[in-house]
Amino acid sequence: MKGKTTIYDIAKKLGITAATVSRALNDNSRISKATKKLVLETAKEMNYEPNKLALALKKGKSNNVGVIVPYINRNFFSSVIRGIEEELYPKGYNVIISQSHESEEREKEIVNNLMNAQVEGILMSLSKSTNKTAHFNQVLSKNIPLIFFDRSLNIAGVSSVTIDDFQGSYKATQHLIGQGCKRVAHMTVGKELGIYRQRFDGYKQALEDNDLPFDDNLVVELKSDIEEGKQAAQKLMNLQDPPDAIFSSTDHGALGAIKWLQGNGYSIPDDVCVVGFSNEPFTQFMELSISSIDQSPLEMGKMSAKVFLEQIKDKKVKIEKKVVLSPKLIIRDSSSKHIVPNKKAN
Amino acid sequence: MKGKTTIYDIAKKLGITAATVSRALNDNSRISKATKKLVLETAKEMNYEPNKLALALKKGKSNNVGVIVPYINRNFFSSVIRGIEEELYPKGYNVIISQSHESEEREKEIVNNLMNAQVEGILMSLSKSTNKTAHFNQVLSKNIPLIFFDRSLNIAGVSSVTIDDFQGSYKATQHLIGQGCKRVAHMTVGKELGIYRQRFDGYKQALEDNDLPFDDNLVVELKSDIEEGKQAAQKLMNLQDPPDAIFSSTDHGALGAIKWLQGNGYSIPDDVCVVGFSNEPFTQFMELSISSIDQSPLEMGKMSAKVFLEQIKDKKVKIEKKVVLSPKLIIRDSSSKHIVPNKKAN
Repeated sequence: MKGKTTIYDIAKKLGITAATVSRALNDNSRISKATKKLVLETAKEMNYEPNKLALALKKGKSNNVGVIVPYINRNFFSSVIRGIEEELYPKGYNVIISQSHESEEREKEIVNNLMNAQVEGILMSLSKSTNKTAHFNQVLSKNIPLIFFDRSLNIAGVSSVTIDDFQGSYKATQHLIGQGCKRVAHMTVGKELGIYRQRFDGYKQALEDNDLPFDDNLVVELKSDIEEGKQAAQKLMNLQDPPDAIFSSTDHGALGAIKWLQGNGYSIPDDVCVVGFSNEPFTQFMELSISSIDQSPLEMGKMSAKVFLEQIKDKKVKIEKKVVLSPKLIIRDSSSKHIVPNKKAN
Repeated sequence: MKGKTTIYDIAKKLGITAATVSRALNDNSRISKATKKLVLETAKEMNYEPNKLALALKKGKSNNVGVIVPYINRNFFSSVIRGIEEELYPKGYNVIISQSHESEEREKEIVNNLMNAQVEGILMSLSKSTNKTAHFNQVLSKNIPLIFFDRSLNIAGVSSVTIDDFQGSYKATQHLIGQGCKRVAHMTVGKELGIYRQRFDGYKQALEDNDLPFDDNLVVELKSDIEEGKQAAQKLMNLQDPPDAIFSSTDHGALGAIKWLQGNGYSIPDDVCVVGFSNEPFTQFMELSISSIDQSPLEMGKMSAKVFLEQIKDKKVKIEKKVVLSPKLIIRDSSSKHIVPNKKAN
């Protein structure tokens, strides 16, 4: 880097201050035309290359848009990101992604570091543990567009793109009842987080609308992984009055349940029907394909990107948009007791 | 942002130039102690908050490390990233990830934008189409550590962490031959990219070492997806002299082949043995689990991060480190004709 011309070199040569050089290069009205001309000519002569970061600092343009997700290795999130990229890349934006690993602390640091990197917007899905919003203040106060997708919190001036989790869950439960199931269990992931709460509520409502009793014993809380899904299935099937269907808030939970059921002599869907949530690719790869709820992640990503592009156009106008997409039930082997007209091919 | 104190406000109040204020705040030796004291006191009085980005600019510290992968939704890459994060996060670094989508053009833009974001290092796996290296010059000339993982190019001063692809492929082919297979087909992904070339070479060498003839008809080139895997299997099985084993350079290709074989009355592994490469999670979820090559992605990520930490410690010392990890063959249902002592539990 030695020998690279700086504004200090130009200032020294011309006998003026670096601040004047900087202002002249940035076409500041406080500087006379004559000085500007002199500075520009000298800069050219000395092969001065403006520091890109310094330019970004002045113009507030970095071309980077920050995306934060809990994990990149969930098909749902990587598909949302693909949707975001498909909209933003042709517009000249680069997408930089960070993972919060479901930690509020980490999410906070990521937001700080993205602001350091001078991103032009932040599109994100909250971590499960996030319940404070103070770390977003700096984003909002700088008029950087902030858009939540999938998991959102109500903050004035912040747009969100979500799916109707209640409806998705209601559809899944209704479908299981339609298959003749009378005791539908539910595997949930901590009811504090909005989306899982809504999935739980949709499940409960569908039971009520079908005059089926709600039984607290049939609701198991677990983290989104296969091992816990196995344990949950074991716990449920060992009940005095075991379920004849399991609706899991996650596909990984459903997979765990299926693995345990198959390993312990249960027939799926005849003894127990199983439905997951998210439509992860493995749900259709399996020999016994798994019914699930598709959340239109690509569309969610595109929509989030479009909301960002609307906001960046005129930062002075505050837009608060709430987009709610409709989930689709995909019926596969794991819950097809009867012939269902809209059964999807594997 | 109105009313926020800038170095220009401090300069105006004290009747000195902004450059002097800036130098004083940055403890520059050209400024007298008295001036420094005065500037610091005035800055405090006026509630001056140094701009974080400006600080990053001065100190060259952004806390962000850029990671570039072709796709985030491949378990291999997301696991490497997890390894990188596990090493770097405790050291105060934030990892920002971008996807090249296998495009050299896009990779180039990402590198530019990461440099704009003032990253402290770039850890990356090259896109399949990358064969020029000019876009790395700016990284190297600024002494920003650049580390390749998995897919690498030979550039002086650039470290890399890879696995021995030749060895992995050799092991897989040797295993198939050990199962009694005489005509082993190979599905490859463009032999230009180093790793796929090495996998092809390992396959060929294993045939040679076992006195089996190499047959060009048994080598099919495809992109890493399921649909093409199906087509490739069809093409291979329709040969006059069809194969009794398929070794695919990718798990997605292997999955496609298995789907086609199962749908067309072939029994696996009895008629055809199949082995993939990468150990994607679905390979073990399947009812018929798929044999594959594990590339120790977590270890690869950790190792890449360690090489970065070594380099960042003293940027003046150029370290060029080539780490080559050893791949593991995981034998599962899709290629277990005989009882194999090291067969892994599903």
